[in-house]
Amino acid sequence: MKKKGDGMSLIRSWVDSANRADTDFPLNNLPYGVFDDGQGARMGVAIGDFVLDLGRVDHGLDPVLLADPAWNDVMAAGPSVWAGLRARLTELLSDEGHRPAVGPHLLPLASVRMLMPFRVTEYTDFYAGKNHAVNVGTMFRGAENALPPNWLSIPIGYNGRASSVVVSGTDVVRPWGQVKAPDEAQPRFAPSARFDLELEMGAIIGQPSDGMVSVAEADQMIFGYVLLNDWSARDIQAWEYQPLGPFQAKATATTISPWIVTRAALEPFRVSTPERERPLLPYLREPGPMLYDIALEVGLAPEGKPETVIARTNYDQMYYSAAQQLAHHTTSGCAMRVGDLLGSGTISGPTKDSRGSLLELSWGGKEPLTLATGESRSFLEDGDRLILRGAAQGDGYRIGFGECAGVLRPARRLPDWAQE
Amino acid sequence: MKKKGDGMSLIRSWVDSANRADTDFPLNNLPYGVFDDGQGARMGVAIGDFVLDLGRVDHGLDPVLLADPAWNDVMAAGPSVWAGLRARLTELLSDEGHRPAVGPHLLPLASVRMLMPFRVTEYTDFYAGKNHAVNVGTMFRGAENALPPNWLSIPIGYNGRASSVVVSGTDVVRPWGQVKAPDEAQPRFAPSARFDLELEMGAIIGQPSDGMVSVAEADQMIFGYVLLNDWSARDIQAWEYQPLGPFQAKATATTISPWIVTRAALEPFRVSTPERERPLLPYLREPGPMLYDIALEVGLAPEGKPETVIARTNYDQMYYSAAQQLAHHTTSGCAMRVGDLLGSGTISGPTKDSRGSLLELSWGGKEPLTLATGESRSFLEDGDRLILRGAAQGDGYRIGFGECAGVLRPARRLPDWAQE
Repeated sequence: MKKKGDGMSLIRSWVDSANRADTDFPLNNLPYGVFDDGQGARMGVAIGDFVLDLGRVDHGLDPVLLADPAWNDVMAAGPSVWAGLRARLTELLSDEGHRPAVGPHLLPLASVRMLMPFRVTEYTDFYAGKNHAVNVGTMFRGAENALPPNWLSIPIGYNGRASSVVVSGTDVVRPWGQVKAPDEAQPRFAPSARFDLELEMGAIIGQPSDGMVSVAEADQMIFGYVLLNDWSARDIQAWEYQPLGPFQAKATATTISPWIVTRAALEPFRVSTPERERPLLPYLREPGPMLYDIALEVGLAPEGKPETVIARTNYDQMYYSAAQQLAHHTTSGCAMRVGDLLGSGTISGPTKDSRGSLLELSWGGKEPLTLATGESRSFLEDGDRLILRGAAQGDGYRIGFGECAGVLRPARRLPDWAQE
Repeated sequence: MKKKGDGMSLIRSWVDSANRADTDFPLNNLPYGVFDDGQGARMGVAIGDFVLDLGRVDHGLDPVLLADPAWNDVMAAGPSVWAGLRARLTELLSDEGHRPAVGPHLLPLASVRMLMPFRVTEYTDFYAGKNHAVNVGTMFRGAENALPPNWLSIPIGYNGRASSVVVSGTDVVRPWGQVKAPDEAQPRFAPSARFDLELEMGAIIGQPSDGMVSVAEADQMIFGYVLLNDWSARDIQAWEYQPLGPFQAKATATTISPWIVTRAALEPFRVSTPERERPLLPYLREPGPMLYDIALEVGLAPEGKPETVIARTNYDQMYYSAAQQLAHHTTSGCAMRVGDLLGSGTISGPTKDSRGSLLELSWGGKEPLTLATGESRSFLEDGDRLILRGAAQGDGYRIGFGECAGVLRPARRLPDWAQE
């Protein structure tokens, strides 16, 4: 197994704040986003405390790739364009000689609003964290039947709703839905009372496929990664999900972090998936390490109150990598397209404080969590702000994702036509 | 209940073939498609035995709506544009005075290739036919547990894969996938041996929504309908679908008919959904008839052999209408977009010869079907051509959909990297 950060150290930039050990955005990172400074949406690259207004510098790209403020066209242009842009940006931001031309186009991150970095073509969500699957399975089916029979053979996934994907900073409104407690005779239409987060990583597909691809090919199709919060209405899900899976329970919102951290930036942090507990079919076997060592945390801040970190875990806890999930996704002949987004599934570690959802942290509401403010939480309350953070740690630098945050707002008033 | 065809009779056209009682495309229909006659893809309207090259006549639309050869932009333009275009086309094709200007732009249907009529934004498939749900449930869980507890309260649906939707005439390749028979210890990677069709209708969303909508509002958002064959790998589904629903089993292909039959054309054929067996929550109650009386049939033709009609049923067999499904789809705040496609779910009637899938027709393979050729079928064989047809019958005319057809081709050779 490759050791994390092998052969990599900080690449120094003439942007001083990019050389700080605690910045998410050193020159090694160069994540891609879309920002608005009040002058309209544009494509940008984060460097230290700044965003570089890409269209204003000598980026070397065909300008048509920047016409739409979204990274889809650059992704579609393919790996040689990706490599060329990264090399050019590294040159522009490391070589002091470019400072006069580039410097004026650095805008303070604090002064801009981040928008969706790409148009989500289709969204698929997986269930590939074993600790999460075991925790949820134990709660719902008992410890003996915790893992479904197929779980160790298939990276279980379902199609999500692309229209629900929003960028960090977007408010999330508590959904209404059909719910029915086991002791109720009939369902009710009510605001979800068990609204939850799910800590995930999202993999962004940068190249299309039109047939079955290998795990190695799948890896090369991935352009980059984001943090992803798959907001989930547990009570709606419990009543709706049999027999065809989650639907409205997962359709309220899925929040992603605003910066696409490229696969290139994460290369030094590759790690293998855990040892197999059952041999995989050949099409799912990994030719090399396909996961990444990315430390993750979840913060919860009640309205007007300070934040408590409620979970710390790592992306290396996944049983299946995004490349394996993508390879599986193509087995039936399913075409993949530029801008497809794959959610990893909830990332929970083995310990109680490393669980990636309140469902697990409060054990289905039976063991409410106590926050630093003294308040307790089984599920989310109106006004709660959820913040996901993640970073791969190198020697003296880190590859960070920025925040993936959202505030839960109260349910809307029920329209007259929906009232009894 | 409205009687079918109330107050409607044939609207005569100067295109003679449009006045035949057996054409799918009288002037009352005016379905929208995209065709290619070898000179490139263009938007067209079917009339009798012809397609009208819309861009070449005085259509009254903003030409920018025809720039992309897909109906999405016309849909996005909204109901008044829809009504204006329909009125204009009715005028052009009924008034003999327009013949000199319009006639030269009628191309024989037999001379053009039909393409996808719209870009599918997202695809959702439902499970809203009660006979189908009872049949499948009986096979899998026994007669006592046939209907899931939520079925009479929720139009059960799951997100499908938009990239899998293809137009009639596209070959379908038998998929590979993980399968495991109950008596096998481990799964195998194999071509699906239980590949099937599902007879459905597809509703096309023509107007967006960004919050909960009523059934009445949902109905007005629907631009039109197509026939839909949701090809399904039953063996892949059986192993993969617990706990999160069908995934690769439904991702090989979904074939739609090439003509969007508008809601306007179907108005005279509205019928109510069947009587409720359990009261619905208010948000799902229908303010008027939302289903349509559309006779449907499925033909199966083995390679080089004549076709056998294996099922005849009607869209009025659905327990939930597309408007109810769409209203439910929005409950969680899920945004709907122009070009979203909703599959009705398999449409099976109460009798054995009205079942909309081979799974039901052969009762899980236990009672193979005998074709007119003498061959038998439990599931589909390589080379089989499947044809769905549908039409609403008026007085001396009918509103037809054209064929929704596809040939099943053999599975591809397994790549080396996927072999043991």
